[in-house]
Amino acid sequence: MAYFNIILYDYFETLDAMGPAEVIGYLSESYILRFLSESGGIVKSTQQVPVETLPFAMMETSGVLLIPGGFGIRSLVNNEDYVERVRFFSEKATSVLTVCTGSALLAKTHLLDGRKATTNKTVYEWACSNGPKVNWLKRARWAKDGKYYTASGVSAGLDMIFGFVSDMHGIECANSLAREIEYVWNPDMDDDPFAVL
Amino acid sequence: MAYFNIILYDYFETLDAMGPAEVIGYLSESYILRFLSESGGIVKSTQQVPVETLPFAMMETSGVLLIPGGFGIRSLVNNEDYVERVRFFSEKATSVLTVCTGSALLAKTHLLDGRKATTNKTVYEWACSNGPKVNWLKRARWAKDGKYYTASGVSAGLDMIFGFVSDMHGIECANSLAREIEYVWNPDMDDDPFAVL
Repeated sequence: MAYFNIILYDYFETLDAMGPAEVIGYLSESYILRFLSESGGIVKSTQQVPVETLPFAMMETSGVLLIPGGFGIRSLVNNEDYVERVRFFSEKATSVLTVCTGSALLAKTHLLDGRKATTNKTVYEWACSNGPKVNWLKRARWAKDGKYYTASGVSAGLDMIFGFVSDMHGIECANSLAREIEYVWNPDMDDDPFAVL
Repeated sequence: MAYFNIILYDYFETLDAMGPAEVIGYLSESYILRFLSESGGIVKSTQQVPVETLPFAMMETSGVLLIPGGFGIRSLVNNEDYVERVRFFSEKATSVLTVCTGSALLAKTHLLDGRKATTNKTVYEWACSNGPKVNWLKRARWAKDGKYYTASGVSAGLDMIFGFVSDMHGIECANSLAREIEYVWNPDMDDDPFAVL
């Protein structure tokens, strides 16, 4: 049993966090899903969804880490203490997953330097500017390099999390879950309908 | 400006509520998104996502109503008081949307009698048994009849909410939002990859 830790912050993007939460929530024999924020308490997404969180002090760092994107990332990338916490959590985590501009925050830790990664395609230039040494992929529904999974914008997080489930628990498990939630899974990480070219 | 009221209850299905919330949250010039439950406070989804809610007593009934599906529906369909509240809210609402087994609860109010509706395809027989007089569609990504929109399982709620946005705000608005969140929208309500035949 592993912890699946989702970091939230004010103005996170709802679906970036809740798409993966939906899927991981089905694997309750493998993962304990938790939402954490710097100080704990209620955190609101850009879409005004209020989610209760535990404080970072209660983070069980041995698990999987997921960083959603969202408007809130814009200030967090310039918050050195926050970036340092994310670096610490990411180094400890068995896998680190980001959705959308979550990869911009992870890039700031330098842990993606020299690695393949992707990000939101509508704010592509800005996101990439946070990691000049990252091997950013312009055409990728999601990217995988070692323990780092980075998804393109918002909904791509759903395709990525099925890819993660497929890697960890087998493609039959991923396909079965996708049928269960009636999701038309795109299993090809290179098939990116929103690529910036 | 209209209220967009999402009803939550213990063991709701995360994505049933959060998919539509993601999309409606972008239309903040048209809608005030609110989550409500019978008594208010923190409500947890089947996937253990804790969401803060307002009590039903604070429901602004003039808006749009969305009922997600989930395991919690199984007991609610047998709760006469709850069904009566849902009937009252649904009659007042300008539009009523359900996702997954949410339509089973709505069917219990008899407001769907004689109307086209659909539901989750993996628990299709059970869901339909809650509304013997409903014109249930076995092949439908989502159905629309008057002010009633009913989606098939979980992820179908995303396609339905874009359909709702298209009806209310134009297809350009829907297409633009789908691009924004990098979602491959299925705009054909009859194109159901998970149909029971």
